[in-house]
Amino acid sequence: MTALPQKRSIGAQTSVGVHPVLIVGCYDRAGRPNAMAVAWGGICSSKPPAVAVSVRPERYTHEGITAHKAFTVSVPSKRYAAEADLFGIASGRDMDKFATTNLTPVRSEKVDACYIGEFPLVLECRLIETVELGAHTQFVGEIVDVLVDEDCLTENGRPVLDRLQPFLYDAFGFGYYGIGDGVGTGFSSGRQFLPR
Amino acid sequence: MTALPQKRSIGAQTSVGVHPVLIVGCYDRAGRPNAMAVAWGGICSSKPPAVAVSVRPERYTHEGITAHKAFTVSVPSKRYAAEADLFGIASGRDMDKFATTNLTPVRSEKVDACYIGEFPLVLECRLIETVELGAHTQFVGEIVDVLVDEDCLTENGRPVLDRLQPFLYDAFGFGYYGIGDGVGTGFSSGRQFLPR
Repeated sequence: MTALPQKRSIGAQTSVGVHPVLIVGCYDRAGRPNAMAVAWGGICSSKPPAVAVSVRPERYTHEGITAHKAFTVSVPSKRYAAEADLFGIASGRDMDKFATTNLTPVRSEKVDACYIGEFPLVLECRLIETVELGAHTQFVGEIVDVLVDEDCLTENGRPVLDRLQPFLYDAFGFGYYGIGDGVGTGFSSGRQFLPR
Repeated sequence: MTALPQKRSIGAQTSVGVHPVLIVGCYDRAGRPNAMAVAWGGICSSKPPAVAVSVRPERYTHEGITAHKAFTVSVPSKRYAAEADLFGIASGRDMDKFATTNLTPVRSEKVDACYIGEFPLVLECRLIETVELGAHTQFVGEIVDVLVDEDCLTENGRPVLDRLQPFLYDAFGFGYYGIGDGVGTGFSSGRQFLPR
């Protein structure tokens, strides 16, 4: 029997290691496109298909989502890491982030929000739940439709991660990282432990 | 002006590209250790520091968290990808997943739940919110403390992603992947777009 690794308590820090980089898009109250970067979010339900994103009440995006009851989630590929970071640093109150980064706001055909035309994966969402958690509001959106760049799909219409090239955020070290090598297969790798 | 990439609608699918692999630990009603793998979860608030995990009501873990009002999130390193997958495939109703994978349930000193002793990053959580979303219940836990393997910390006590070696789940293709190369730095890479 091997001894367990020694652990140290580091206090109530906020990281689970791997975080997605999501650009949450909406219109502001005047109908102008706005968007912000979020690392605290992800899929939260299969039926209804739903995604959750956490936004501080003081963010400009917060009032846009609240006003229009809709948002999009655009997932950037890694070549847009700097642009995505700008969407986290700056506020739509002070700056047109689309003009600054030379990215294109596109009106969703399904919900009252805009997405980023250059990013390969887009979730179009209708606000269905607002959970107040203290410093953050968690907006839960029903995923009405998903748009994917044609060149990121297989012939059968399945999105391919290696073509989408999303990247992740390390909340401990503040770095952005691409996707590494395969280390297993879901609902399969674990079967080696089951009786045959 | 370059034309935007052509997009195709693929319907309401549930992926944001990058998903963490989280093992949610708890005790069952009889006080036996139990745990399950979750890809739908992540940090959702900074104050209180909180993490959300989505669990179907029919999962055995659901009744354990509800009964004890506590859970842990253990983040596996990539060499445990097969073990983590087993925690997603099998149910604690039918199997002692710890015995099957030869992993060790450890009682949290802070909350009424167990974690996986071999995994390098552990969040100890007190249940503060239960959000019913349809097919899934979202459990929100206040992060009471975080435990990290000593050999994954810098001299200053900061966790290092390259030592934790977490991995991610691709919900489109069902693959598990390690962390790739750095592609930027949070709150920094985007500054190139700002006036000097």
